[in-house]
Amino acid sequence: MSKKFSFELLKIETNTKARLGLITTGHGTIETPVFMPVGTQAAVKTLTPEELKENDTSIILSNTYHLFLRPGNKLIKNMGGLHKFMNWNGPILTDSGGFQVFSLNKLAKIKEEGVYFNSHINGSKCFLSPEISMEIQQDLGADIVMVFDEPVPYPSSYEYAKNSNEMNSRWAERCKKRHSEENQALFGIIQGAMFKDLRKQSVENIVEIGFDGYAIGGLSVGEPKDLMLEFVDYTAPLLPEEKPRYIMGVGTPTDIIKGILCGIDMFDCVLPTRNARNGTLFTSEGKVVIKNSKYADDESPPDPICLCYTCRHYSRAYLRHLFVAQEILSSRLNTIHNVYFYNNLMKRIREEIKKDSLLDFYASVQRSAGRDQEDKQIQ
Amino acid sequence: MSKKFSFELLKIETNTKARLGLITTGHGTIETPVFMPVGTQAAVKTLTPEELKENDTSIILSNTYHLFLRPGNKLIKNMGGLHKFMNWNGPILTDSGGFQVFSLNKLAKIKEEGVYFNSHINGSKCFLSPEISMEIQQDLGADIVMVFDEPVPYPSSYEYAKNSNEMNSRWAERCKKRHSEENQALFGIIQGAMFKDLRKQSVENIVEIGFDGYAIGGLSVGEPKDLMLEFVDYTAPLLPEEKPRYIMGVGTPTDIIKGILCGIDMFDCVLPTRNARNGTLFTSEGKVVIKNSKYADDESPPDPICLCYTCRHYSRAYLRHLFVAQEILSSRLNTIHNVYFYNNLMKRIREEIKKDSLLDFYASVQRSAGRDQEDKQIQ
Repeated sequence: MSKKFSFELLKIETNTKARLGLITTGHGTIETPVFMPVGTQAAVKTLTPEELKENDTSIILSNTYHLFLRPGNKLIKNMGGLHKFMNWNGPILTDSGGFQVFSLNKLAKIKEEGVYFNSHINGSKCFLSPEISMEIQQDLGADIVMVFDEPVPYPSSYEYAKNSNEMNSRWAERCKKRHSEENQALFGIIQGAMFKDLRKQSVENIVEIGFDGYAIGGLSVGEPKDLMLEFVDYTAPLLPEEKPRYIMGVGTPTDIIKGILCGIDMFDCVLPTRNARNGTLFTSEGKVVIKNSKYADDESPPDPICLCYTCRHYSRAYLRHLFVAQEILSSRLNTIHNVYFYNNLMKRIREEIKKDSLLDFYASVQRSAGRDQEDKQIQ
Repeated sequence: MSKKFSFELLKIETNTKARLGLITTGHGTIETPVFMPVGTQAAVKTLTPEELKENDTSIILSNTYHLFLRPGNKLIKNMGGLHKFMNWNGPILTDSGGFQVFSLNKLAKIKEEGVYFNSHINGSKCFLSPEISMEIQQDLGADIVMVFDEPVPYPSSYEYAKNSNEMNSRWAERCKKRHSEENQALFGIIQGAMFKDLRKQSVENIVEIGFDGYAIGGLSVGEPKDLMLEFVDYTAPLLPEEKPRYIMGVGTPTDIIKGILCGIDMFDCVLPTRNARNGTLFTSEGKVVIKNSKYADDESPPDPICLCYTCRHYSRAYLRHLFVAQEILSSRLNTIHNVYFYNNLMKRIREEIKKDSLLDFYASVQRSAGRDQEDKQIQ
């Protein structure tokens, strides 16, 4: 379908379902498993594109809903598209806007034709449909675009989820029909709430339509983590092996590894960037909550084995000072570290998959996460 | 007095009082006239030290008052001093804390021994004196430190200004006596409010004590601009020719050039960094208020002839979007541009002084400023 898009499955780990792959787009290649930092409003908060690259980012995600409302997709199209507008020449994935329409607009009205809602910025009446979402994403010019769907809320009744599933299939068909941009890959999204037969039905419907990749949606929406992973583990093997698999909005380092062990290739989450601004650093020794007074005169870097710019030049004491003094540089330096940490976690995971040793690595990450829990009990 | 500090007066313009000089410190040399970006809380807001250097910053100013209160001078000393703490290995000037004590604490009580005040952060009782200010600045380890004085408010009665002048002379003596750090230059400050005989008296008293450089204080504190410049023009020629001259808290590009024409060598001001965060960019064509809707689809860079990172990579449309969307990257990109603009203004001024043509350049800058006024009338 898309001339410039391809996915090569390089390897499946011998003792797990973890996969190694390579995505090719018109703006460069992406080694999978990959984490995509989130640039909601045409910027990964606090960072320049150069910093994203220096910290091993190979693809970013941007939000159709936000850019549709502000500054507007037509404006971005007239400015030469999203890549040029934001000075990022690597691959971009845009979501469809569906998730934000529902999460930011509690009064959104769903009809067969699309969704009516009020802008969370100025209250103005808005409408999004499969066709309009495709058009917006085409204007933005992302390398990978997503079908417009309804992410079924948690919890949902079986009947609601079944009806939504059927509408989502019709919407996916409309997206496929409207999608005309040869240089954009189009991914379908599997829904079906927490019902296995509906998940299976969704896979059958969406795969039947045929897409360049498949996302598992409607997860990480408030359900218990075990349930989320149960459904990832159930759904992923139903998907075609030769297409990339993406789980949206996940997650913590351990959740990402669990997803990879289920055969997922792509992840995105605001966690590393948002936590950075809130002063929480992911490190090889677990989370560092930088405002804690124990770091006030700590001369060591946030993570003693990290090679990021922040860890090479700044102490926990300085980072704590910047955070407490509410200096913008605090958000920047923390974001650099967390983005580097996530991207290097993925790099490490890819190396472990090559060696068929991801389970061993997973055990060591779990031990770090366990220390976090102990820390919380102490504080 | 200071082994590592020296000032070389290289030239005085033939047709004005503008001076070209070179300051040498233990952390590098500074070509004068120079502008010092302000790093109040051990950070020039939004920027890394590398960005400061890339944008031609040769010295920064940091605030004793703020660092004394948070994170504390002893902590910074224990972390290896301010240079190491904030990862800036170029020259630093610290003010004495006097200005902030009075401007941030309306109830500060001045006694002969020093000033009693409440922390603006947590209300705790604090005390600063000439000796304590010297000790704090020694702990911070700046290359140039300032005497602790009372900046006389505007307007002040003759009697108040005269008494303050006399106390400031005694305080300056106490600073000189307490100042023991060989690697730190100590600058005296001329006060005397808006009374020429008191300014003259202050110069005599302070120069008699003898310092490595002299600041003209108590200006840019609310008085009319003409009055400020009248007093700069009056006071500067009274100072010893062979020492650097610094006017604190100035200012706009035109005010800086006027100061240079009076024979001033050093300037600092929050204007370029604060205005950047408020969305105002200094350009060769006058000020650009980036939020204005006329820039919404403007593909041109903020300043068409500027070579800074921001102007090389981003459009006014994108910068407007970031500002309106309240993205932190907006503050960063605007700050990079304004710091570059100020530092390059100084570079240009030094070149003009070499060619004895600063007055011609001043006329062209005034024309830009004139356009700003016209813009304001239009808006």
